[in-house]
Amino acid sequence: MKKIPVLEVFGPTIQGEGMVIGQKTMFVRTAGCDYSCAWCDSAFTWDGSAKEDIMLMTAEDIWNRLLEAGGDRFSHVTISGGNPALLASLKELIDILKENGIESALETQGSRWQDWFYDISDLTISPKPPSSGMETDFEKLDEIVHRLSENSSQFSLKVVVFDDLDLGYATRIHHRYPGVPFYIQTGNPAVGEGDTAKLVSDLLLDYETLIDKVCERKDLNHVRVLPQLHTLVWGNKRGV
Amino acid sequence: MKKIPVLEVFGPTIQGEGMVIGQKTMFVRTAGCDYSCAWCDSAFTWDGSAKEDIMLMTAEDIWNRLLEAGGDRFSHVTISGGNPALLASLKELIDILKENGIESALETQGSRWQDWFYDISDLTISPKPPSSGMETDFEKLDEIVHRLSENSSQFSLKVVVFDDLDLGYATRIHHRYPGVPFYIQTGNPAVGEGDTAKLVSDLLLDYETLIDKVCERKDLNHVRVLPQLHTLVWGNKRGV
Ligand code: SF4
Ligand code: SF4
Repeated sequence: MKKIPVLEVFGPTIQGEGMVIGQKTMFVRTAGCDYSCAWCDSAFTWDGSAKEDIMLMTAEDIWNRLLEAGGDRFSHVTISGGNPALLASLKELIDILKENGIESALETQGSRWQDWFYDISDLTISPKPPSSGMETDFEKLDEIVHRLSENSSQFSLKVVVFDDLDLGYATRIHHRYPGVPFYIQTGNPAVGEGDTAKLVSDLLLDYETLIDKVCERKDLNHVRVLPQLHTLVWGNKRGV
Repeated sequence: MKKIPVLEVFGPTIQGEGMVIGQKTMFVRTAGCDYSCAWCDSAFTWDGSAKEDIMLMTAEDIWNRLLEAGGDRFSHVTISGGNPALLASLKELIDILKENGIESALETQGSRWQDWFYDISDLTISPKPPSSGMETDFEKLDEIVHRLSENSSQFSLKVVVFDDLDLGYATRIHHRYPGVPFYIQTGNPAVGEGDTAKLVSDLLLDYETLIDKVCERKDLNHVRVLPQLHTLVWGNKRGV
């Protein structure tokens, strides 16, 4: 079995964002990303700051760790990163989950294809808007969305929005793939903020502003606008 | 055309709860309920306090009002109450929405069947737990869930939870209808609270407690736990 670089295994908790927001789930966070978004809220997965904490685990190790932490109190596992789509070796973990009747969710920015995308129950493709400082490879993104659509996969697109340029980008993404369930999410501009009450009130204001902007536009009708629930509940704490 | 008793038509805004949480939508709130839940957050729809405000409208009136308020900035309409399932006459409104390519959502406690349930895009059946003071008619609920399942309707069950008795009730509902997408939602115990900051911090604490309880239980795995987003953003304000 190939080793998978893992930074965190925790749960059960709830999924705080996107298409299965609120879902009771375990989390596996993998290390490594091909992007370096300006506002990345998990920069420790790729900036070297948590290098010492990376565990090289087989799929079976991870499964055992999930059972240790979650016992029989879960039926859903979320794989997050970093960009887990860098890891072909995740196939083995996803197979183990399927064999055990566990549903899975995974989010990736859409820069890389993996055949095991077909086996993810709830797949979120989250291309990064201008404020991230990253460039979208639309050829790659088209290919990914096309393959998933052809396969009738249950997947969604999600764009994090910090400003008007980002909202314009989100609108273009939505119109490029009109049939795909589309989520707009407020970003967290203060990933270092330790005062959770202040963070929550700022985030809820940002969320209200974003709702207002989306509601004004006729080119953003069939969309869902969501905050990050885990940040509202736990602030910037890790591992919850 | 038969008249429909309407209390509010507003939007676009977002759906704050349940299976299409975050969805950009218009709202139509009908008057009248066969229940009188202890903690009802829309008691004005049935307790007589807003009797003067009830507008008797045809389906076409409502459609025109929706267009007036929302223009071309919506593709989704939520019908709420009260209990809109009391109103056979809603069929005409739902037909107009369908003809215009507008999706619809509706929530009801599951005390009454209507054939137009089949035409709702996102139907939520929300039986009321013990803290409401209401008794569930399980024969009726069985019939409703059975009909919707047979029809492969896109529907979900949602239970609002205030205390441990309610969580026990929610668990029984989930196990009675195991194949149906199941949502657990925090209630709002302070529908009169005007201090939104205090309300928000209390509600987020309640939400965290509920998450913890659900996460501890092995008989509540395939569930989603959600707050009411609109209350977090707008407090107890009406018409947003
Ligand atoms: S793609 Fe995701 S994990 Fe990678 S840098 Fe951007 S936000 Fe961070
Ligand atoms: S069923 Fe709904 S509208 Fe009717 S009393 Fe209960 S909470 Fe209020």
